[in-house]
Amino acid sequence: MVQTGRDATRAYFKGWDERDHNSLILRDAGEAGMDFFGFKVPTMRRSTRWKPTSRTTASPPNASLRATCWRPASGCASRSPRATRSSCTRRRRTSATALGYFNPPPWNAASEVGIAPIRMDHALIYGPDIEKVQALFVDVLGFYLVEHILLEDGVTDLAIWLSCSTKAHDIALVRNEEPGKLHHTAFLLESWEKVLRAADIMSMNKVPIDMGPTRHGVTRGTTIYAFDPSGNRFETFCGGYQSYPDWEPITWTWDEVGPAVFYHDRQLNPAFLSVYT
Amino acid sequence: MVQTGRDATRAYFKGWDERDHNSLILRDAGEAGMDFFGFKVPTMRRSTRWKPTSRTTASPPNASLRATCWRPASGCASRSPRATRSSCTRRRRTSATALGYFNPPPWNAASEVGIAPIRMDHALIYGPDIEKVQALFVDVLGFYLVEHILLEDGVTDLAIWLSCSTKAHDIALVRNEEPGKLHHTAFLLESWEKVLRAADIMSMNKVPIDMGPTRHGVTRGTTIYAFDPSGNRFETFCGGYQSYPDWEPITWTWDEVGPAVFYHDRQLNPAFLSVYT
Amino acid sequence: MVQTGRDATRAYFKGWDERDHNSLILRDAGEAGMDFFGFKVPTMRRSTRWKPTSRTTASPPNASLRATCWRPASGCASRSPRATRSSCTRRRRTSATALGYFNPPPWNAASEVGIAPIRMDHALIYGPDIEKVQALFVDVLGFYLVEHILLEDGVTDLAIWLSCSTKAHDIALVRNEEPGKLHHTAFLLESWEKVLRAADIMSMNKVPIDMGPTRHGVTRGTTIYAFDPSGNRFETFCGGYQSYPDWEPITWTWDEVGPAVFYHDRQLNPAFLSVYT
Amino acid sequence: MVQTGRDATRAYFKGWDERDHNSLILRDAGEAGMDFFGFKVPTMRRSTRWKPTSRTTASPPNASLRATCWRPASGCASRSPRATRSSCTRRRRTSATALGYFNPPPWNAASEVGIAPIRMDHALIYGPDIEKVQALFVDVLGFYLVEHILLEDGVTDLAIWLSCSTKAHDIALVRNEEPGKLHHTAFLLESWEKVLRAADIMSMNKVPIDMGPTRHGVTRGTTIYAFDPSGNRFETFCGGYQSYPDWEPITWTWDEVGPAVFYHDRQLNPAFLSVYT
Repeated sequence: MVQTGRDATRAYFKGWDERDHNSLILRDAGEAGMDFFGFKVPTMRRSTRWKPTSRTTASPPNASLRATCWRPASGCASRSPRATRSSCTRRRRTSATALGYFNPPPWNAASEVGIAPIRMDHALIYGPDIEKVQALFVDVLGFYLVEHILLEDGVTDLAIWLSCSTKAHDIALVRNEEPGKLHHTAFLLESWEKVLRAADIMSMNKVPIDMGPTRHGVTRGTTIYAFDPSGNRFETFCGGYQSYPDWEPITWTWDEVGPAVFYHDRQLNPAFLSVYT
Repeated sequence: MVQTGRDATRAYFKGWDERDHNSLILRDAGEAGMDFFGFKVPTMRRSTRWKPTSRTTASPPNASLRATCWRPASGCASRSPRATRSSCTRRRRTSATALGYFNPPPWNAASEVGIAPIRMDHALIYGPDIEKVQALFVDVLGFYLVEHILLEDGVTDLAIWLSCSTKAHDIALVRNEEPGKLHHTAFLLESWEKVLRAADIMSMNKVPIDMGPTRHGVTRGTTIYAFDPSGNRFETFCGGYQSYPDWEPITWTWDEVGPAVFYHDRQLNPAFLSVYT
Repeated sequence: MVQTGRDATRAYFKGWDERDHNSLILRDAGEAGMDFFGFKVPTMRRSTRWKPTSRTTASPPNASLRATCWRPASGCASRSPRATRSSCTRRRRTSATALGYFNPPPWNAASEVGIAPIRMDHALIYGPDIEKVQALFVDVLGFYLVEHILLEDGVTDLAIWLSCSTKAHDIALVRNEEPGKLHHTAFLLESWEKVLRAADIMSMNKVPIDMGPTRHGVTRGTTIYAFDPSGNRFETFCGGYQSYPDWEPITWTWDEVGPAVFYHDRQLNPAFLSVYT
Repeated sequence: MVQTGRDATRAYFKGWDERDHNSLILRDAGEAGMDFFGFKVPTMRRSTRWKPTSRTTASPPNASLRATCWRPASGCASRSPRATRSSCTRRRRTSATALGYFNPPPWNAASEVGIAPIRMDHALIYGPDIEKVQALFVDVLGFYLVEHILLEDGVTDLAIWLSCSTKAHDIALVRNEEPGKLHHTAFLLESWEKVLRAADIMSMNKVPIDMGPTRHGVTRGTTIYAFDPSGNRFETFCGGYQSYPDWEPITWTWDEVGPAVFYHDRQLNPAFLSVYT
C-alpha cells in the first residue's frame, strides 16, 4: 500500500486507487486487533466504533503494530474522533488519487509495488450477538443481507455477509462467544492472476499463508489469507459478484460450511477457525 | 444469454447470474434500436422510457430483430407498460437464478454456453441535450457523475458517464444532434481472459467486430464492440473500477479523447464514431 | 478428456489438442498404478516400460480403474506390445485432432467439456536408483537435467526433473525405497484461470484435492493435485518455463525443499509425501 | 529488457529469464532492419546470417538504432563473427540468469520493469524464395514445418512457420519480391493478462501499436504488434501450442488468410501488409 502520512503514533496508508487521504491507520499497540472500521453509506457518512476504546489506551510504544482503524473510504478515526476527524478533513482537501483526475492512465508504478491492493474491501468481525449487529447495519446504515451460513439447527445464523453497495459484501460477521474480535481485513486485487502474484510475493517475503490461493463459495471471490507481523490475519481478495438490495439472500446449510468458506478444499483448516485478534 | 421466455412478439433473456425474470427483451422491428432501458436505483424502481413508442409501432413481422427493452435488473417494459409489468411481476415470483439460493456453485454449465455474459451492464445513448438528461438522472434518480470528456472549448461535455451504484458506470451519454439514438448496450464478463474467449467466439461465428479486445481509458474497463445481426452495436465489457458517490469526477480533455475511449490505439475508428441505431 | 476408443478391457483417451490416437489408456486392475509411460524423443520413438508386466496380469474384472499406459504422444502400450502397437498404428492413420488440419479454430467445444486438459504433460515416478534412470534417459533417450533437489548431504539428489523437449520437464523422479511407484501424472492446462476453473470443477464433483491451486518452485508451473476414483494422484499443470539443453540445471537445497515443491505454503503436506501408487 | 552490456557501437539486452549473455544487440545504423538472427538447434549451434553484411557497413554514427543481431539464445553475432564470438563466449562464462541457479524465486523485480518479456521468441522474415530457405532449415538445421498459408493457387506457400523445438514456431517466412526484409521480431510474455499490461505500457509511452491485443489463427498465440523508434516492428507474443516434429502441418487456405493472421478481425490491416524493414 501507499503510505500517505505519519505522525508520532500512527502511519497512514491507502490502496493505489483510493482517493481519500487514507483507508488504513496502523498504530503501535500491545496486542494485535482493530480499533475502528468505517463505511461510506448512501445517506450518512460516519465511522462506526467497533471496540471499546479503553482496550487500546495502554498501548506501549514500540510494541507490535496494530491496525487502529480500517476504513474503506472517507474520514479518519481515533480515540478522540472529533479532533482527528477535522484534521483528516483538512488532509482530504489536499489529497488525491495518485493517478490524477485528468486523463489518468489505468494504473501506474504504485500499482506494482508489492502486492499493491486497489483498495480496502471488507472486514470479518467475530462477536456473540450478530442479530443485533445485523439490525443496526440494516436499519440504521442501510446495509442488506447478501449471504448467510446456518448453524446445525437450520435456523440460527453462524455467519452473515452484508453489503452497503453493489459489492457482494462490505462486512461479514461470525458468531463467537468472545466479543469484539477481528478475524480479518481484506484488500482488493484486480484478478486471479494478481492473487497468484500476491501469493508469490508472500512467499518471497516468507509471509505465513493461512490458506489459499483458493475460492470462496460465499461471494465466489478468490482469496489468500495470511498473517501480518503483528498476528492480524489479512486477506487479498478478488472478485465476488455484483449484488443488489432487492435480491433474495443466498443460504448455506451447515453441512456445506466447508465449501461455503473454502470452495476447493471443502473443509475449514484449524488455524482459520481458531486464530482471531 | 439464457432465454427465459417467449411470446408472440418477444423473446426474453438474461445473463447467467441475473436473478430477475429477464434483463433483455428482443422484438421484431423494422429497424434496429432500443425502446427502453431501465435501472434499479436506491430509492425507487422504475423503468425509464428512452424512445417515443410511436417509433416502434410499425414493426412488421419477420423484420430484423430489435432490442425492445434493455434492462439491467427488475421489471419489464413494453409499449403498454402497465399490462406487461403485471404479467412480468407474476413471472418474477417463480423465476430464480440458475445457480439457486442454497449452497450454489460459483458457476454452472450456462456460464460457458456461448459468450455467456454475467449480466447486463450499461448502455451508451446519443442525444442533443445531455445536460438535461444528466440533471434528471442525478436529481431524480440519484445517479452521480463518474467521468466526462470535454469538447474542444474545455467547458462543454462531449460525453458523461453516470453511476447509480458502486460500478464505474450504469449509463453513458454522448452529445449528438440526432436525438434518441443507441450507441451500444454492454454485457458484463468476468475477466480479460473471458474477453479473449468472447472475441474467439465472435470470430468462430463470423460476428463483425467493431473494435477490440482493448481497454477503455474511461472506467479502465476492457472491451470488445461488435454488431448483432440487426445492426445494433453491443459491447462485452469487463472490469472498471469501483466508484463512490463522493468522488470527484475524472475529466478527459479534448486532445485525449482517443485514449479516453480506446486506450491502446489512442484514436477512434470511423465505424465507432458514425454507426448508431 | 476425449474418449477415442474402447475395447474389452481398455478405454482410450486424449487431450483436446493431441493428434495421436490417444495419450491415456485406462484398464480395470486390482490396484491403482501405472503400467507404461512413453515419450517422443528426437531420434527414436519407443515406449519405455516402467513396471513389471506381471504386476498387472491378475486384474480382476470390475475392479477399480487403473491407468495402464500414460503416453504423452505416439504409440500404444500393452502387455504384448508388438501386437497392440500394430493395431494402434492402424488406428492412428484414421485419427486426427478434433480441430482439424485446415483453417482450425483456436479451440472448440471439447476444450470446455470438464477440465479439458490440452494434453498429457509429464509424470513423476518413485524409485530407489534415480541415478541409473537418469543415465538411461540422458544417454540413451537424449533427455537433459533441468532442475534437481538435493538431500541433506548437499550432494545426493532427492529428486530430478528431466526434459526431452523445450518444456521445463517431461518426467520427474524422486528417490524412494520402494521401486516402481507412481506419484502422479500431469495434464496440461492453458492458464492460471483454467487452473481455477479445474479446481472449481473438482469441487463441483467432490474430487478430493491433495494440494492447490498453487505454484511450484521447481519449473514455476501452477498446479492442483487431486486423486482419481482409483486412488491415483493426478495433476492439472500450467506453465513452466521454456528450457534449453545447454542450460545449467537449477539446484534446490534441502532447506528449501518446501518452496521447491509448494512455493506458497513453503512446506510439504503429509498426503503429498506419503501417498503413491 | 535487461541491458547486459554496452560497447562503442552496440548495446546488449536479454529477457528476464534468459541465461546467455544477451539475446538482442542493438547498433546505430542508417536504416531500420536486422543483420542476424540465430538459433539453438539440437545437433549444432551456429548463428545463421540473414542479410548481406554490406548492407550495414555504411551505418553512420548517431543514426537511428537498428537491431544488428536478434538471437533467441546462445552466441553473439557481428560483422566479423569470429572475433566477437570469442569475446561473447568470455562474457557468457560470467553471465547468469538474474534469478540465479540456487533456490530461485519464480520471478523478480526485473520481471516487472517495463513490458519485461521473458525471452526472445521468434522472427518473421520476408523474401522471394521461401522454398529454398525452408529446405535449408529443415534439411540442415533440423527444423520442421508447423503451419503454412497457401496462395490463391492452393499449392504455393504464401507463408510458412518452422520450429526447431516444441514451441509452435521459431521462425516464420513470408513470400515477398524484395529479399532480406524483416517483418517483425517477437518477444515472449507469460499470459494474456501480461499482453494487456504490455498494451497499457505502450499507450503510456505513446508507442504506436500496429495491431492488437488480439489472437493469431496460426499458432493460436496472442499478440500485439508495435513499432520501435527506429521503425522496426516488434511483437509481444504469448502462448502458441506445444508442437511435435511428427505432427502433420496445419494448412490455411487463401480465403482464410485474414483469420489465419488476425483471428478476431478476420482481415489484415494495411500497415501490417506494407511495412517491413
